[in-house]
Amino acid sequence: MRESQNVFHLAVPVRDLDEAVDFYVGKLGCHLARRYDDRITLDFFGDQVVCHLSGPEHIDPSPTLYPRHFGVTFRSREDFDRVLFLATQRDVEFFATVGPRFKDAVEEHLTFVLRDPSNNLIEFKHYRDPRMMY
Amino acid sequence: MRESQNVFHLAVPVRDLDEAVDFYVGKLGCHLARRYDDRITLDFFGDQVVCHLSGPEHIDPSPTLYPRHFGVTFRSREDFDRVLFLATQRDVEFFATVGPRFKDAVEEHLTFVLRDPSNNLIEFKHYRDPRMMY
Amino acid sequence: MRESQNVFHLAVPVRDLDEAVDFYVGKLGCHLARRYDDRITLDFFGDQVVCHLSGPEHIDPSPTLYPRHFGVTFRSREDFDRVLFLATQRDVEFFATVGPRFKDAVEEHLTFVLRDPSNNLIEFKHYRDPRMMY
Amino acid sequence: MRESQNVFHLAVPVRDLDEAVDFYVGKLGCHLARRYDDRITLDFFGDQVVCHLSGPEHIDPSPTLYPRHFGVTFRSREDFDRVLFLATQRDVEFFATVGPRFKDAVEEHLTFVLRDPSNNLIEFKHYRDPRMMY
Amino acid sequence: MRESQNVFHLAVPVRDLDEAVDFYVGKLGCHLARRYDDRITLDFFGDQVVCHLSGPEHIDPSPTLYPRHFGVTFRSREDFDRVLFLATQRDVEFFATVGPRFKDAVEEHLTFVLRDPSNNLIEFKHYRDPRMMY
Amino acid sequence: MRESQNVFHLAVPVRDLDEAVDFYVGKLGCHLARRYDDRITLDFFGDQVVCHLSGPEHIDPSPTLYPRHFGVTFRSREDFDRVLFLATQRDVEFFATVGPRFKDAVEEHLTFVLRDPSNNLIEFKHYRDPRMMY
Amino acid sequence: MRESQNVFHLAVPVRDLDEAVDFYVGKLGCHLARRYDDRITLDFFGDQVVCHLSGPEHIDPSPTLYPRHFGVTFRSREDFDRVLFLATQRDVEFFATVGPRFKDAVEEHLTFVLRDPSNNLIEFKHYRDPRMMY
Amino acid sequence: MRESQNVFHLAVPVRDLDEAVDFYVGKLGCHLARRYDDRITLDFFGDQVVCHLSGPEHIDPSPTLYPRHFGVTFRSREDFDRVLFLATQRDVEFFATVGPRFKDAVEEHLTFVLRDPSNNLIEFKHYRDPRMMY
Repeated sequence: MRESQNVFHLAVPVRDLDEAVDFYVGKLGCHLARRYDDRITLDFFGDQVVCHLSGPEHIDPSPTLYPRHFGVTFRSREDFDRVLFLATQRDVEFFATVGPRFKDAVEEHLTFVLRDPSNNLIEFKHYRDPRMMY
Repeated sequence: MRESQNVFHLAVPVRDLDEAVDFYVGKLGCHLARRYDDRITLDFFGDQVVCHLSGPEHIDPSPTLYPRHFGVTFRSREDFDRVLFLATQRDVEFFATVGPRFKDAVEEHLTFVLRDPSNNLIEFKHYRDPRMMY
Repeated sequence: MRESQNVFHLAVPVRDLDEAVDFYVGKLGCHLARRYDDRITLDFFGDQVVCHLSGPEHIDPSPTLYPRHFGVTFRSREDFDRVLFLATQRDVEFFATVGPRFKDAVEEHLTFVLRDPSNNLIEFKHYRDPRMMY
Repeated sequence: MRESQNVFHLAVPVRDLDEAVDFYVGKLGCHLARRYDDRITLDFFGDQVVCHLSGPEHIDPSPTLYPRHFGVTFRSREDFDRVLFLATQRDVEFFATVGPRFKDAVEEHLTFVLRDPSNNLIEFKHYRDPRMMY
Repeated sequence: MRESQNVFHLAVPVRDLDEAVDFYVGKLGCHLARRYDDRITLDFFGDQVVCHLSGPEHIDPSPTLYPRHFGVTFRSREDFDRVLFLATQRDVEFFATVGPRFKDAVEEHLTFVLRDPSNNLIEFKHYRDPRMMY
Repeated sequence: MRESQNVFHLAVPVRDLDEAVDFYVGKLGCHLARRYDDRITLDFFGDQVVCHLSGPEHIDPSPTLYPRHFGVTFRSREDFDRVLFLATQRDVEFFATVGPRFKDAVEEHLTFVLRDPSNNLIEFKHYRDPRMMY
Repeated sequence: MRESQNVFHLAVPVRDLDEAVDFYVGKLGCHLARRYDDRITLDFFGDQVVCHLSGPEHIDPSPTLYPRHFGVTFRSREDFDRVLFLATQRDVEFFATVGPRFKDAVEEHLTFVLRDPSNNLIEFKHYRDPRMMY
Repeated sequence: MRESQNVFHLAVPVRDLDEAVDFYVGKLGCHLARRYDDRITLDFFGDQVVCHLSGPEHIDPSPTLYPRHFGVTFRSREDFDRVLFLATQRDVEFFATVGPRFKDAVEEHLTFVLRDPSNNLIEFKHYRDPRMMY
């Protein structure tokens, strides 16, 4: 188990702050913590994601899942399903639809990947064995 | 507070897996969870960091702190100081030495930034007001 | 101790939603959860406060502390002091400055009261005996 | 998750203290923490509600749900159902009977509203997605 | 550590229910959960004590500490001191004033004993080694 | 919820220490913490019960449930059932067999009562609404 | 419940460190914390197991379950089943296949025993009554 | 952090069960969970140690710290000091007196080692950086 009092933080580039608020708060249901001229900070599923306003050279026009993406691994299947429902219901763009990975292995997990308007890829996972979350 | 049973995960590029093990496990004191041919998975301060073996086009030769970096915000000053001691004692390369940011503001925090061998930047922070961790 | 998985919720009137965002998020450091045309929902120190856009008949021109106010009682003195520092540093309007109440009694506590732009009164308290928080 | 060691507190007007004890303790099953000449303090589902003895000018003769009400959002459906059972079994007056709101949306939740003898409205909710509790 | 979701319960005789409410709620700061004709139930420091209205044959005119008493062992010295302060400040009758027991042994602890109006003895303890709380 | 770091303690008379060890440890599955010449201390479902060696004048020859008994209220039905199974399987003497109390009321609970060899009565309960545990 | 912030540690002999890493990390899914010339340290299901490189005189050629073995007792059946699945799926050598012990007694539990390459025996258990875990 | 609901278990040989009870319960302050003809089970600092009655071939006449020992690593210095005080006060035999190891390194910790009557070695540790507990 991770320590609940610490917070992981991640900084990612976005091309427009209003668009980022609309996506992360309005769509994904994250909470807006702070807004500055050049960035917003988010309570992203309990951790901190900071969206920095960035020039086009930082926006990947054709993102691939490797080597860069981020997301949340849910211990409970229910929490995974809820985010999947939210993404479907609110018409969030899927980069990869839901499906199993490492089928039949101990590491088997369900995964889907969303794309934010600045082409950052966000993966949600659920392992059948929570020891494999690392 | 974040949910202690979920895990944030982040995938980053590295140019060499042995070098990454040496840095993240041998230096930073993270735990090696799994090793595959093309990546290693780490228990990074309670969350998951995956280092993907990547070609040189994914390694930033001259990294800047914005818009991409990741790290941990510690609730307790003691935990922050311990990682700072570890980095100093074990000669980890600092991208930015320790210092305050947003001095005298509510958002004031201490920060330092390490650089891994593949030029990923890792920031550790401690806010005097834990409500500002987001 | 209260159950950490439940949430108290409170609905209050505000005269302007942007002003409410500016006060609760920009000043008090609460997180914006959702925004609708007629209300905003906030993660207010871990509980939910909903600000409903309301006509002037709902805005009390000369509020008094009794019988209506709300707020947070902090178990730790440090958390109380941090909100006091925040309110001072960010020039939030005080309805009542900090001071003790029930001096020398078991119920002794420190208290200060803020006023939001719609004249809702928000009290923060810290008891020396946490059993008196109820 | 909210911090379990802190307490939300809310002050509301009541027209009679005995009546308030009868309602909040005898009916709703809250615990009486303290009684003074002019108010009672309650452990209300883990938070503090203070009922202040108030003149008739503070008692709303025809309350509406907006913009003022308070209550508890339960993470578990079972806890929601138990309070509903209690209110039914003990003949508490319903201001609004149980039903869904925001049907089929991510924010869908069950809700019912009770009325205390001083016309304060108390809403209990359960969201199918706990991330929507804020 | 004990399981926080379970509750120890103890039934004791009292000669008068109003007097018991006055002592346990008004003096000791316990919370009144329920009142019936023949008993009251209390949230006594997080556990349940039920005071049963009893004839004089159940009231011990000259109680001794052994073999019957009950109370709370606090892990933190601060919590112990707070109850001692409360008892002193509110003129609760002491059956035994505060002092050490098993001095210099591993089992050394501080203890004081209160007497309720029905001669039930209530002991509060604090061990310097919490492993000795059992 | 009660504080998990504190411990309720109860002292009760027993006529024989070996017999008490056999009953509380060998039958009920409590843990023996300490043994002195005149008493044993037990980890009794996470709280402390001390059995004091006592003369026959302290042993009630014909105990009644009121006004004196003690026990545990389990939040989960499963835990209640397990102790019931244990008592049945190990032929512990029942003072009252299992059954409901306050049928159909909010306070409805299951209860059974065991008798230790010194005629102390031990009640185990499970409420369908955990708010009624107090 | 045990204290989650402490760690049990156990030192055992192994004949080869690479082989031990392969078994404990690659097969059992434990995390490698540190590697020295003469030992590795592991996060073994949340506790610490240290494998010391040892001469053949420390390797038991024909191990028996008594008097020396170690392992984990899982509170949840699901967690027990997951490790059983992992051991089966990854062809870990079983010293004893899964089965019940103390059938129909309160102490009934499921158990299976694995053998590491240095003949240390590792037992996993699940009791139907968690009070019997000690 | 380890999962508080699981339990590590370790089986060790002892030459005499009464002697083992005297040492582990009477001296070390562990709790006796169960006693059978051929073994005792202990709540050893929150985990399970089982002492199996064993022939002399299982008792090591001249034990060495490596490769076999077990013990507890305390997160808090205070808890470490309390066990050290207990061992000193109750004249437990030290195999190694208290002192630092890996001085000035990140892995620096305090350690002492006790010897039980059957020559099992029990080490207690406290690291200045809790991340090194594994």
